[in-house]
Amino acid sequence: MPRRIAVDAMGGDEAPAVVVEGAARAAESAGGALELLLFGPEAPVREALHAREGAPDLPIRVVDAPEVIGMGEAPTEAVKQKPQSSIHRGLGACHEGRADAFVSAGNTGALMAASLFILGRLPGVDRPTVMGIVPTLEGKCLLMDVGTNVDCRPAHLVQFARMGAVYTERLWDGEAPTVGLLNVGEEPGKGNEQTRRAYELLREQPDLRFAGNVEGRDMLAHAADVVVCDGFIGNITLKFGESIATTVCWAVASMMRRLAWWGTR
Amino acid sequence: MPRRIAVDAMGGDEAPAVVVEGAARAAESAGGALELLLFGPEAPVREALHAREGAPDLPIRVVDAPEVIGMGEAPTEAVKQKPQSSIHRGLGACHEGRADAFVSAGNTGALMAASLFILGRLPGVDRPTVMGIVPTLEGKCLLMDVGTNVDCRPAHLVQFARMGAVYTERLWDGEAPTVGLLNVGEEPGKGNEQTRRAYELLREQPDLRFAGNVEGRDMLAHAADVVVCDGFIGNITLKFGESIATTVCWAVASMMRRLAWWGTR
Repeated sequence: MPRRIAVDAMGGDEAPAVVVEGAARAAESAGGALELLLFGPEAPVREALHAREGAPDLPIRVVDAPEVIGMGEAPTEAVKQKPQSSIHRGLGACHEGRADAFVSAGNTGALMAASLFILGRLPGVDRPTVMGIVPTLEGKCLLMDVGTNVDCRPAHLVQFARMGAVYTERLWDGEAPTVGLLNVGEEPGKGNEQTRRAYELLREQPDLRFAGNVEGRDMLAHAADVVVCDGFIGNITLKFGESIATTVCWAVASMMRRLAWWGTR
Repeated sequence: MPRRIAVDAMGGDEAPAVVVEGAARAAESAGGALELLLFGPEAPVREALHAREGAPDLPIRVVDAPEVIGMGEAPTEAVKQKPQSSIHRGLGACHEGRADAFVSAGNTGALMAASLFILGRLPGVDRPTVMGIVPTLEGKCLLMDVGTNVDCRPAHLVQFARMGAVYTERLWDGEAPTVGLLNVGEEPGKGNEQTRRAYELLREQPDLRFAGNVEGRDMLAHAADVVVCDGFIGNITLKFGESIATTVCWAVASMMRRLAWWGTR
């Protein structure tokens, strides 16, 4: 029985062509284990699918969703005003059991809002979260939240920890994953009001392997498999980290240009 | 008239020898423009000074401060219980006009607490702050606070902004420095409760050149001369950034070792 995955054909840059290409490659490499449902306005999605070599023979179906939510649209309004969007219809297919999962590279806020509205929440989970994957010296770790929940109560961090632990255990085959708390010092008393309280709560959870506080400098050394923080700090940390690579490349390129200029004198 | 700088001879790693060496180099390169006062237990500091070639002829004086505050001591206790420490005596010299500034690489918390106690605060400034200097594509920017104030009200960020602007203008000869707010998005409405309110306050200050929100990815591109944030996020950002260089070096070294191992097979 193949897994049936709903895909937002209108999400992300250069949709639907890029999404169709990705779906086609996934279906090709899965060898029958995947069945894909592409949600979007039928005509352009079908056209993109037919333009892709070999795609019509793959287990990919187009499901009409005439409305499109743009990247710049305000999430809550978009979710209310466009019930026929690819996001709504794709999540609806999950809710009704016609799909096992939904994948979208579209408007994150709208995706979160529609998920809350259509799928609801797990018991014990107040808020959905967005994870970031951070490369470490030992592989990778999950950083969460990375931007959805900019103001968090300590209990929310515990919920993120639990979701992260389940995710890494099931999807990365991580045995008994450790959970750390992003903080300004290693010692228990360190941190702001939020993290001092979160530390106490995390320590009390019998089902979590709490590794204590994780400092900014320890994340890349893989101090824990899952690192929790609020979405404000997570977003800034992730974006700052990503920008370092870009900046170093830019600086090196600029130096090379200068050397080349010296070479021509 | 030389500037008289009080120096904590017992602060930082390998004190007092390293501090004495630094003081001697500073005095040598200043050519009479600096006069240094080394605060610490007289015997070991004097011994270190005499062990350094040429130091006895430089404008460096030892001032006895028999107590030493260790790096691991709890700041408020240490400040109360060791009034004869190098930190107390050095700050006392500033307070009484016997020195123009005090330099210490010692216990930051104790330094902050003693500064508040001995020097007090400037009018309109509720809390002292610690700055970090971040290299950018256009030079450097000031990030503040980087760890002293882990819980801040929006008004504190405005005070940091004003201190940072004065600092860069006077000490870096920066004309009309710009001030940015570290945040999760560029648009005015973005952020958590603290930064949304701080944005409004910063925009209203007639004496600040407010450059708006600065995302984690824009700091290295020099989005502003001064970037303000609370000490929790500042500390994590700074430490995370520093660790990236170390981690990359470690990974390259590890790869080289592996290549060398392959070479010997």
